[in-house]
Amino acid sequence: MVIVMEKGATQAQIDHVCDRIREMGYDVHPIVGVERTVIGAIGDERGKAKLQALRSTPGVENVIPILKPFKLASRELVQRRTTVRVGELEIGNQQFVVMAGPCSVENRPQIMTTARAVKRAGAVILRGGAFKPRTSPYSFQGLEEEGLKLLQEAKEETGLAIVTEVMAPHDVELVARYADILQVGARNMQNFSLLKQLGQVPKPVLLKRGLANTLEELLLSAEYILSQGNPQVILCERGIRTIERYTRNTLDLSAVPLLRELTHLPVVVDPSHGTGVRSLILPMAKAAVAAGADGLLIEVHPNPEEAFSDGDQSLLLEQFEQLMRVIRPYVELEGRQL
Amino acid sequence: MVIVMEKGATQAQIDHVCDRIREMGYDVHPIVGVERTVIGAIGDERGKAKLQALRSTPGVENVIPILKPFKLASRELVQRRTTVRVGELEIGNQQFVVMAGPCSVENRPQIMTTARAVKRAGAVILRGGAFKPRTSPYSFQGLEEEGLKLLQEAKEETGLAIVTEVMAPHDVELVARYADILQVGARNMQNFSLLKQLGQVPKPVLLKRGLANTLEELLLSAEYILSQGNPQVILCERGIRTIERYTRNTLDLSAVPLLRELTHLPVVVDPSHGTGVRSLILPMAKAAVAAGADGLLIEVHPNPEEAFSDGDQSLLLEQFEQLMRVIRPYVELEGRQL
Amino acid sequence: MVIVMEKGATQAQIDHVCDRIREMGYDVHPIVGVERTVIGAIGDERGKAKLQALRSTPGVENVIPILKPFKLASRELVQRRTTVRVGELEIGNQQFVVMAGPCSVENRPQIMTTARAVKRAGAVILRGGAFKPRTSPYSFQGLEEEGLKLLQEAKEETGLAIVTEVMAPHDVELVARYADILQVGARNMQNFSLLKQLGQVPKPVLLKRGLANTLEELLLSAEYILSQGNPQVILCERGIRTIERYTRNTLDLSAVPLLRELTHLPVVVDPSHGTGVRSLILPMAKAAVAAGADGLLIEVHPNPEEAFSDGDQSLLLEQFEQLMRVIRPYVELEGRQL
Amino acid sequence: MVIVMEKGATQAQIDHVCDRIREMGYDVHPIVGVERTVIGAIGDERGKAKLQALRSTPGVENVIPILKPFKLASRELVQRRTTVRVGELEIGNQQFVVMAGPCSVENRPQIMTTARAVKRAGAVILRGGAFKPRTSPYSFQGLEEEGLKLLQEAKEETGLAIVTEVMAPHDVELVARYADILQVGARNMQNFSLLKQLGQVPKPVLLKRGLANTLEELLLSAEYILSQGNPQVILCERGIRTIERYTRNTLDLSAVPLLRELTHLPVVVDPSHGTGVRSLILPMAKAAVAAGADGLLIEVHPNPEEAFSDGDQSLLLEQFEQLMRVIRPYVELEGRQL
Repeated sequence: MVIVMEKGATQAQIDHVCDRIREMGYDVHPIVGVERTVIGAIGDERGKAKLQALRSTPGVENVIPILKPFKLASRELVQRRTTVRVGELEIGNQQFVVMAGPCSVENRPQIMTTARAVKRAGAVILRGGAFKPRTSPYSFQGLEEEGLKLLQEAKEETGLAIVTEVMAPHDVELVARYADILQVGARNMQNFSLLKQLGQVPKPVLLKRGLANTLEELLLSAEYILSQGNPQVILCERGIRTIERYTRNTLDLSAVPLLRELTHLPVVVDPSHGTGVRSLILPMAKAAVAAGADGLLIEVHPNPEEAFSDGDQSLLLEQFEQLMRVIRPYVELEGRQL
Repeated sequence: MVIVMEKGATQAQIDHVCDRIREMGYDVHPIVGVERTVIGAIGDERGKAKLQALRSTPGVENVIPILKPFKLASRELVQRRTTVRVGELEIGNQQFVVMAGPCSVENRPQIMTTARAVKRAGAVILRGGAFKPRTSPYSFQGLEEEGLKLLQEAKEETGLAIVTEVMAPHDVELVARYADILQVGARNMQNFSLLKQLGQVPKPVLLKRGLANTLEELLLSAEYILSQGNPQVILCERGIRTIERYTRNTLDLSAVPLLRELTHLPVVVDPSHGTGVRSLILPMAKAAVAAGADGLLIEVHPNPEEAFSDGDQSLLLEQFEQLMRVIRPYVELEGRQL
Repeated sequence: MVIVMEKGATQAQIDHVCDRIREMGYDVHPIVGVERTVIGAIGDERGKAKLQALRSTPGVENVIPILKPFKLASRELVQRRTTVRVGELEIGNQQFVVMAGPCSVENRPQIMTTARAVKRAGAVILRGGAFKPRTSPYSFQGLEEEGLKLLQEAKEETGLAIVTEVMAPHDVELVARYADILQVGARNMQNFSLLKQLGQVPKPVLLKRGLANTLEELLLSAEYILSQGNPQVILCERGIRTIERYTRNTLDLSAVPLLRELTHLPVVVDPSHGTGVRSLILPMAKAAVAAGADGLLIEVHPNPEEAFSDGDQSLLLEQFEQLMRVIRPYVELEGRQL
Repeated sequence: MVIVMEKGATQAQIDHVCDRIREMGYDVHPIVGVERTVIGAIGDERGKAKLQALRSTPGVENVIPILKPFKLASRELVQRRTTVRVGELEIGNQQFVVMAGPCSVENRPQIMTTARAVKRAGAVILRGGAFKPRTSPYSFQGLEEEGLKLLQEAKEETGLAIVTEVMAPHDVELVARYADILQVGARNMQNFSLLKQLGQVPKPVLLKRGLANTLEELLLSAEYILSQGNPQVILCERGIRTIERYTRNTLDLSAVPLLRELTHLPVVVDPSHGTGVRSLILPMAKAAVAAGADGLLIEVHPNPEEAFSDGDQSLLLEQFEQLMRVIRPYVELEGRQL
């Protein structure tokens, strides 16, 4: 349920409504807007009808049920688009945000070379994995804290913000010390222990869609983070498993406009994992811009043939520069800046 | 195998090579280019090595194996892009071709109103089903020949070319009398009897990808048509079945750049069936343009709520006009005209 | 709608109800049972409420809506299980029916050797393709009528009934001259022109589930055949496309008990196509018996390594004999005979 | 690589080979058999050829590459079937093991009633979730440690062993104090941090296949546990996401014989999640037995309509008793006991 307060409702009235909601056994999520405050009452679906009684409480304009299974993520609750701040950046706003970098942080020269190149080409966030979820236990598992330190070095030199993956609840604190945005990988989209932990961190979370998860499930996973108190969630479409074989995944670009209808959260696209094929990244990056994405996540490596992971889908430094040049006019057609 | 003739090869030399290929038990597919002729030798994979002997035949520059299972559709055989001519139109060329109209032809006012409106908005081809493949036998099955006649009337008045579906080999001749382009629906992509019949018709064929078919299978179905002698095939991405539930299908836009790598045939996109959701058609149309498509297939209906089929995914006339306005600058960015 | 007649309803009363239904614009499908007659009124969903008026017609006990989109195939309409007769065989009854033979009819020795061996091992129906739907136009396409004649020869010598595929409406008459059961392949499950043609043939039809079709769609395809007047439809589960890679398809055995709930039609299982892996056929045949199937369709070849098609999933003759021995006690546990 | 020692190899020879393998940078996994010892050398694929040099070391009979990406789980390495011991039980042996109980532990009467009933019917292991992975944060999340204590009470009274899910690395120690078998749910199949933690616990792990994961990925996830030193892994097929809609998942029974070819680990089947439909559980349980499974995981609830989770797919107590009666002769046909 959403309790919509009147325009001139006083703080005392708002507090009173919040108290009443808690008494009825629901969690309270007030959203203070420029014009008015709305209050989300979140909890067990059964017996929610009793919240309707708040209609006659002073200062209350309306009580509206939220029909979607996700509530805090829903546009029924929050109609304005959410922007996620990372330093001076605002993701989900006029700026089209490009995050680029290698799949894995491998060593200092690799990450520094890449960071300088993607910065020069116009990226504003550096991606790079220090903790790597790998299908096989015998594959390279990441440099862990050493990798985080290399990312920090790259950040200090270039000014790029850092997005990097966290795989386990007990690593959240460590990763949050270094990262500006904490990434949840596709395989962990329904790792609910991890999501709950991330709901308690004062840092933005980039939540990737799972290999075979619906958009409703993606939004319910976002809801885990939001309902724990962290409102800074960025959604990422990165392809789903289908019957096609030439590509590693099938990039579902219709997720972009659909998520923009369903939720107020920003949406970015990862055409590198979404296709798994280097030559498809540029056209799919253009298409993602035209579909209305708020940004891109791109794998870039100075020497893809020797990459520890995902070499086949990493752009060379000059290919990434070309991508940035090519997408610019499409970004502008969308009324945004790169 | 492809036999590449020298630049100055004479007709007699070409004929001699063709004869030798036939003697060895293969079909001959000569492709006469501006600069030189190449000859495809098509047939059983086993024993193809013997064709290498043609290397020493006068006029032959090279003999190259085609590694893909599809041959005539392959860019290994034909490197220039194929353009399919429909009257003065050239699909697969500089012009970005929009085909629009109702799912089903329902009656004269419906088809005439739609034809005039889509023509005015900039479409060049009218779509509309007279033979309808419906999941249930109790759903509207189409007006059949009466529908074809209404399409012809619309063509005569507006000058729009006609694309319409054919479902059975025994209807090919009838449909070909009225249609400029014969459409094979997704459910018939592997109806090989139909494909063989269409290979013998002097009309272009629009071949839609099946619900759960790979791009390799799509190209092998095209190969059925090409190998029967009809070189005018247009491929159409229209979404595949996946785990997502909000959309009717998942539109696989990566198919567009991938098909452009694999084949010389033109590729168009159907965002109406590809999403099944009216509000997603415009953003996905833009994305299809940006992904490099040669054209679009769009469902338009003057009154979608009363449509006999697919009302949920049909644009209103004014929504279609808006779509045409919105995609124009994207088409121009791609170096094409609408 | 189903109109249930009273126990003692007269033929005149039944005829009157049928006339009334036709007047209201619906097709009539009377089902004469031992105790009473029920009449299906089939047609456009809209306006069906008016059929309720028949409640007060003499001889009518009740008028019941059928909620499923499929009607004639539904257990709501026909509660007794349908048995399909093939000569003295009754598919869908106490006998567990095994259909076996090669993927393709290749030549006389191959089909005769196989027919004798599968007969000896206990099969009652010989399978073998004369018209072959192949993904590539360059693969072996079948011996066509010559193949049908070889099947007939095998039938004459062994007494086995024949099931063989028909791919196009214009071949139905030809194939029906030779076959006891006409098979619709997975790729043609939604070839509605073919289904309508098969609805007018006085021969049983074996309808295979499509690669990516739901059971509801399978039953609606059966409905195409039933609603044209042919009540003899056998359904076949043969695996669907999924994310698994070790197997060619994923055999959905839950389809068997589910179809037995939804429909009165017999259900057989094809573990050869369902897995595509020889070593999995025996265990999956046992599992199909235990899941409640009415029969099996098994590929057998005297020399799988030299088979023109599907060698990897064909059993050797002695492997088929072993399969028959191994499944027998499971068939008996199910209260059936082999 | 597997280093196969000679029959009479001495411990000193074995130790020497192990030292040599470690010097070359590989992990050592000795498997001591009745007749001889084989030693797995596990690590980076690149440069493995140098291990071939061990061929000439005293006591070594052969050095064999393991071609599958999974090594310790592979039948190439371990040809005898592994049995996992739980008290006096041996999973993967002659006994067919049934694990039954509610989806969630809800309260004392519910779990005690269920435990007594499933024990009486012949189950040997009690299942019940205390930590529940739920798609929505607003669904019941489990009783956590209180639930574990209730399971322990049920164990003390009935003698049933306990299998229960663990969702996070930091809960492994807690859950391991109460559980006899730790379950990894489908959504956590690729939660590699959790798997690594479970590799260090002296308790068996029941690893469920993910919603859209291949069997190769399942075995690589098992490999995470095995390679950390815990050899007691039980695999569980529980259905995958497909295009079918009537069932919650598609139970892939071909996984059972396929896993028996690929791995030496025991395989059980969960027809409750695998179908999500109560009436399908009994036939699919029979089919699982016939496919060669080592056991079943069945949801049972005294009052499914009021279950906190998964009521639709829970058997009533008497339905479970019936299932046990019905599967018994099938189990015996497989040469096992219930």
